[in-house]
Amino acid sequence: MKVLVVTATPSIESFNIAIALRAAEHIQKRGHEVIFHDLYRENFSPLLESEEIPRDAVLDPAAAAYCRELSEADGVVIVHPDWWGQPPAILKGWVDRVFRPGTAYEYEGLPGEVGTVTGLLGGKFGVVFTTGDTDEEREQNYFLDPLETLWKNCIFGFCGVEKFKRRHFSIIMISTEAQRKAWLEEVDTLLDPFLENNEQQGGIYG
Amino acid sequence: MKVLVVTATPSIESFNIAIALRAAEHIQKRGHEVIFHDLYRENFSPLLESEEIPRDAVLDPAAAAYCRELSEADGVVIVHPDWWGQPPAILKGWVDRVFRPGTAYEYEGLPGEVGTVTGLLGGKFGVVFTTGDTDEEREQNYFLDPLETLWKNCIFGFCGVEKFKRRHFSIIMISTEAQRKAWLEEVDTLLDPFLENNEQQGGIYG
Repeated sequence: MKVLVVTATPSIESFNIAIALRAAEHIQKRGHEVIFHDLYRENFSPLLESEEIPRDAVLDPAAAAYCRELSEADGVVIVHPDWWGQPPAILKGWVDRVFRPGTAYEYEGLPGEVGTVTGLLGGKFGVVFTTGDTDEEREQNYFLDPLETLWKNCIFGFCGVEKFKRRHFSIIMISTEAQRKAWLEEVDTLLDPFLENNEQQGGIYG
Repeated sequence: MKVLVVTATPSIESFNIAIALRAAEHIQKRGHEVIFHDLYRENFSPLLESEEIPRDAVLDPAAAAYCRELSEADGVVIVHPDWWGQPPAILKGWVDRVFRPGTAYEYEGLPGEVGTVTGLLGGKFGVVFTTGDTDEEREQNYFLDPLETLWKNCIFGFCGVEKFKRRHFSIIMISTEAQRKAWLEEVDTLLDPFLENNEQQGGIYG
């Protein structure tokens, strides 16, 4: 299995980096291949420009490589802090540029018609770890937990991913070292069902 | 009154640009001052870096100017396409960098404590125009319309803005010229209540 791990956070000392590295390590221990992207350290350029939008645009080699990796991966693990109910801009830009027609979905329709979208990521899994400092009650009842629908429905669901799990760790700012250690152990446990051989997976995501 | 108009879309021919220009023109016609930002044409840098995060960070002059404008504005008008239930990355980065402590909110708390947040944008208005190609039923029931809570609660509400209105225009891809003309006229109408003198505003936003 080949798994893409993508994280976005400015500080290398962030707990997000610890989660992403832990996920990568665990996936490798289970005998799978990891492609790791720390978007800040890579200086990923998050701007989708006009010329990149058409279905058959010629992409620069770096952008094309990011797309190929997504196509070839059996699963995607995303790790990021909750900034304004959304990922940091650099990660939003990775979605804008990499989840493109021909890679993540196909659109078919005539001009002037609402066409149909077919997801191209069906069969892959998506696991999202987010971190935050908001009280759970306020997150659910006032902010309405937008990260859940953004990743589950708007992004992965739209592209045909049904095997999906998100885990939000909070409140980071007051967490103890023991708590963070337990959270890192949970990363392994959460990933395990997705790392089984395909033949063994029937029904566990339902 | 001083109103900040911010838009983000790669193509200058986008209907988003038409909306943003219409809004700016209408605000000026009503006798108010407009500060206009077309983030793509300005090459706005959307990356919030570690050194910019602390409350008392020394900002580069460009970032400081964006923040000062937000502080000084009486209202903010945002115009953008719906990309994955979110704004384009460049606009997300404008929020990440400009809606900062000391400008948009204050955080008070001791290390190891969950502190308190006070919005600093109270009294200002926020108006958001978004454009999309999703069928309304699917937007509300499957995607759960995340842009509404993102702008209303997670961003403007968090910062103390109570005078808020969002209007989503869709389906753009099959809209006629007459429809788009009517939508642009609606931009004026929607803005009007926010452009009255403060003394006249009692109650209209409830």
